[in-house]
Amino acid sequence: MTIKLAIAGARGRMGGTAVLAANEAADIEVVAALDYKYDGQFLHNETVTEMEDGIPIYTSLTALKAAHNPDILLDVTDPDAVFVNASEALTLGMHVVIGTSGLTSEMLTDLERLSKERQKSCIIAPNFSIGAVLMMKFAQQAARYLGDIEILEMHHDRKLDSPSGTAVKTAEMIREVRAAHIQGHPEEQETIPGARGADIEGMKIHSIRLPGLLAHQEVLLGGEGELLKIRHDSFDRKSFMPGILLAIREAVSTTQFVYGLEKIID
Amino acid sequence: MTIKLAIAGARGRMGGTAVLAANEAADIEVVAALDYKYDGQFLHNETVTEMEDGIPIYTSLTALKAAHNPDILLDVTDPDAVFVNASEALTLGMHVVIGTSGLTSEMLTDLERLSKERQKSCIIAPNFSIGAVLMMKFAQQAARYLGDIEILEMHHDRKLDSPSGTAVKTAEMIREVRAAHIQGHPEEQETIPGARGADIEGMKIHSIRLPGLLAHQEVLLGGEGELLKIRHDSFDRKSFMPGILLAIREAVSTTQFVYGLEKIID
Amino acid sequence: MTIKLAIAGARGRMGGTAVLAANEAADIEVVAALDYKYDGQFLHNETVTEMEDGIPIYTSLTALKAAHNPDILLDVTDPDAVFVNASEALTLGMHVVIGTSGLTSEMLTDLERLSKERQKSCIIAPNFSIGAVLMMKFAQQAARYLGDIEILEMHHDRKLDSPSGTAVKTAEMIREVRAAHIQGHPEEQETIPGARGADIEGMKIHSIRLPGLLAHQEVLLGGEGELLKIRHDSFDRKSFMPGILLAIREAVSTTQFVYGLEKIID
Amino acid sequence: MTIKLAIAGARGRMGGTAVLAANEAADIEVVAALDYKYDGQFLHNETVTEMEDGIPIYTSLTALKAAHNPDILLDVTDPDAVFVNASEALTLGMHVVIGTSGLTSEMLTDLERLSKERQKSCIIAPNFSIGAVLMMKFAQQAARYLGDIEILEMHHDRKLDSPSGTAVKTAEMIREVRAAHIQGHPEEQETIPGARGADIEGMKIHSIRLPGLLAHQEVLLGGEGELLKIRHDSFDRKSFMPGILLAIREAVSTTQFVYGLEKIID
Repeated sequence: MTIKLAIAGARGRMGGTAVLAANEAADIEVVAALDYKYDGQFLHNETVTEMEDGIPIYTSLTALKAAHNPDILLDVTDPDAVFVNASEALTLGMHVVIGTSGLTSEMLTDLERLSKERQKSCIIAPNFSIGAVLMMKFAQQAARYLGDIEILEMHHDRKLDSPSGTAVKTAEMIREVRAAHIQGHPEEQETIPGARGADIEGMKIHSIRLPGLLAHQEVLLGGEGELLKIRHDSFDRKSFMPGILLAIREAVSTTQFVYGLEKIID
Repeated sequence: MTIKLAIAGARGRMGGTAVLAANEAADIEVVAALDYKYDGQFLHNETVTEMEDGIPIYTSLTALKAAHNPDILLDVTDPDAVFVNASEALTLGMHVVIGTSGLTSEMLTDLERLSKERQKSCIIAPNFSIGAVLMMKFAQQAARYLGDIEILEMHHDRKLDSPSGTAVKTAEMIREVRAAHIQGHPEEQETIPGARGADIEGMKIHSIRLPGLLAHQEVLLGGEGELLKIRHDSFDRKSFMPGILLAIREAVSTTQFVYGLEKIID
Repeated sequence: MTIKLAIAGARGRMGGTAVLAANEAADIEVVAALDYKYDGQFLHNETVTEMEDGIPIYTSLTALKAAHNPDILLDVTDPDAVFVNASEALTLGMHVVIGTSGLTSEMLTDLERLSKERQKSCIIAPNFSIGAVLMMKFAQQAARYLGDIEILEMHHDRKLDSPSGTAVKTAEMIREVRAAHIQGHPEEQETIPGARGADIEGMKIHSIRLPGLLAHQEVLLGGEGELLKIRHDSFDRKSFMPGILLAIREAVSTTQFVYGLEKIID
Repeated sequence: MTIKLAIAGARGRMGGTAVLAANEAADIEVVAALDYKYDGQFLHNETVTEMEDGIPIYTSLTALKAAHNPDILLDVTDPDAVFVNASEALTLGMHVVIGTSGLTSEMLTDLERLSKERQKSCIIAPNFSIGAVLMMKFAQQAARYLGDIEILEMHHDRKLDSPSGTAVKTAEMIREVRAAHIQGHPEEQETIPGARGADIEGMKIHSIRLPGLLAHQEVLLGGEGELLKIRHDSFDRKSFMPGILLAIREAVSTTQFVYGLEKIID
């Protein structure tokens, strides 16, 4: 049975990747795109035309549903649009996969309630990279045995903020399983400030920014006489495709409310 | 309650590490050493003397048991000695932890039967490094999502055999969860033989040998647009101490037959 | 003074990068393209049109010279075309930069003679990546002190041949400065063939091929108690631009015949 | 011809390594040790006895010279003792190799003057690791082409100060060849202070401290589309032996005043 998929945000980078992923999958068909404009037109790759061999665009989810009856809505727009779209989709009886972060806790509570009422899945995945999720999960698992941890995240020098969201998320996942403790020598001294990095409950995070870098993270876990290193490199947004497909298939084959791809990877 | 521990192989490197680990643990006391010689003498670090403030040495496990009533025997000798010692220990009602590989499947079957009959634990850990075991477990978990894998193992140039036992064990653990497939381009060609490494069901293993190296392994898992790398460095045999303690505590607090430290790490 | 540059091979990937690099440089102007077709048309990025605001295309170097009088020809076509073009350019009094490998030793001898006769530079750079050239130079320099060396080269799994040309070139450069010797234990044994990699005079080369990888190389140099690692990652062909510019500026400011970018990097 | 070597500081760690290195070299003989005590006794490895088959110890360099006439004094004591010993050695007509940092500029000026007056070598090497020196030299060479640089130094968590002396020295060597400039995005922001590391003229240094680590440094040099990484690992003080021998042989075969092992490595 083919999964009938509608996509919101299909003209964006992540949406384009999602369309590509769905087209390459034998069991999924992209039946329509939800957009805030271009109603009645058609999407061909990332451009919009009048030619009917593309993906039909709708500005109303109700109309889209009536015409194509999709099993599931994948939404990769922004948090505000996502919330409106996802609520409507659940109400209309569709499963939902959300690929964005930034939903408020009120929004999450509402979506969880709706998901349960309508008995439809709502899977929220701020990070579709299975590799990155595995890195975080493994770091968390290993931290119970090797509790001294430093995180290095490396990005191109056009990135404004440091540390990265993934590094902070990794530290937070580790924090759940280890006792907070100061790392390094208790009397250690920085002769130049910042040398020892950013601190999250004793864990250190170091942000490297260089032209040439893409998106990389290393978690170093040290024990007496040994070191465990878990590194993930993202070279291309194609790396999100398996995570998108995994979430879609998981959503249509179950009924669940899930926050975080790590919950459906074991 | 203090765990009373007897050690076989205490004069060797691993045994010395075990004595050190036990001495540093508040809940364990080394009560006696089992050896094939030096009966009635005493062990001080790795040397044997007549001075009574060391660990008393016995050549008979029955006599050792009568004098000190240990809860558990840790055996880090060779496979043949281990089998005899462990069988006797189980029969005498002691738990057993074995830190060696090379036991035959007949030996394992016998030990499992004895362990169950006597309701005593028998934990066999060919590798006491928790970090190395985590690396292997993570590689196995990740292989279900990222099924193209190469293993690099790096050791000092005095190591005779390649690939290393840990690399082969890693590949075997991965083999359990992924379908065998040729990696690399189906028409790839080596212009110099050996470039693509050793092959285990399509996985490639590369053995690096250089002066200066200690013991290191990297597992590389590739997916479209991304790379996950799990690396373990062993700098010092102190890294075995947490694994030895974990096995001892697990053995005395349960009744089980276990092959592989990975079974008691989660 | 602006350097007037003609390019042969401008429609290809490397040629497109060269046009981009020249356009971004304040001191260089691309005046014309040499091609085997499209005479009289114009190049806009990598497409050819009739619109006159592009780069004018010529199929005759003599006509091109007459119309634009370039200082230098950059040729990034194939070895046969390169030889004909470069010979003609030198004869016409232009400097030449060649960005390809595969010229025969007869061709090289001829070009060197012409370069000297006409007192024009001929710089041949099979690899325009300054970073890769630095890696090779440093490996060579270090090999005099740390003579035990293994090379790891990592590429995407669509690459057919192994080991890579850069890895072999690196080994050859190292071979010039170190005595050949077997590495690893003299009695070492492969329990699975290929584990120890490809051999070039005792040096080992290991070729890793995984989806997700781009183009990476590590040179490991081991000494008693230490390890030196030199690694280069190529993420994008933009990395060739500084090398192209360096070769062009060097060519027009001197008169020399040079094989290898490493000769003009110090 | 065998080089006759006297050592000051032979009972210390570095001195012990130096004795070992000299003993393994066919062309060097350790003839005597200079010490502040134990005059007339003998050094066996790192212990002092009355047994005459060890290295004879002197508290007077004049007496040592009269009895053994060494070609060269290797001094691995502390800065104050070194200055007195080295001045006396040069005055007595011996070459000198100094393996310590911390000499004041006045001391250096005095030693240089004496070295020239007496026509004897004085080689001062704060770091005897050839591998570490190569790493610094290569980073400096590469910085002329790839000017965006971050330094990661990794040490065990008993190290008090950060960043390490080698990291600062590396940055200073790079500073000589590149223009200072802010790295990262001009508007970059640390959401947790310290994330971007310590700053030396725009270069960032990150200090990692974990149990298990020994002494490691990575220099990352980024360019558009590429990354060059130079890494050095020190696993054991044996790595200082080749540098010690190099300095001794260089000292006796020339007449020069040199500060820094990098000056005699090319």
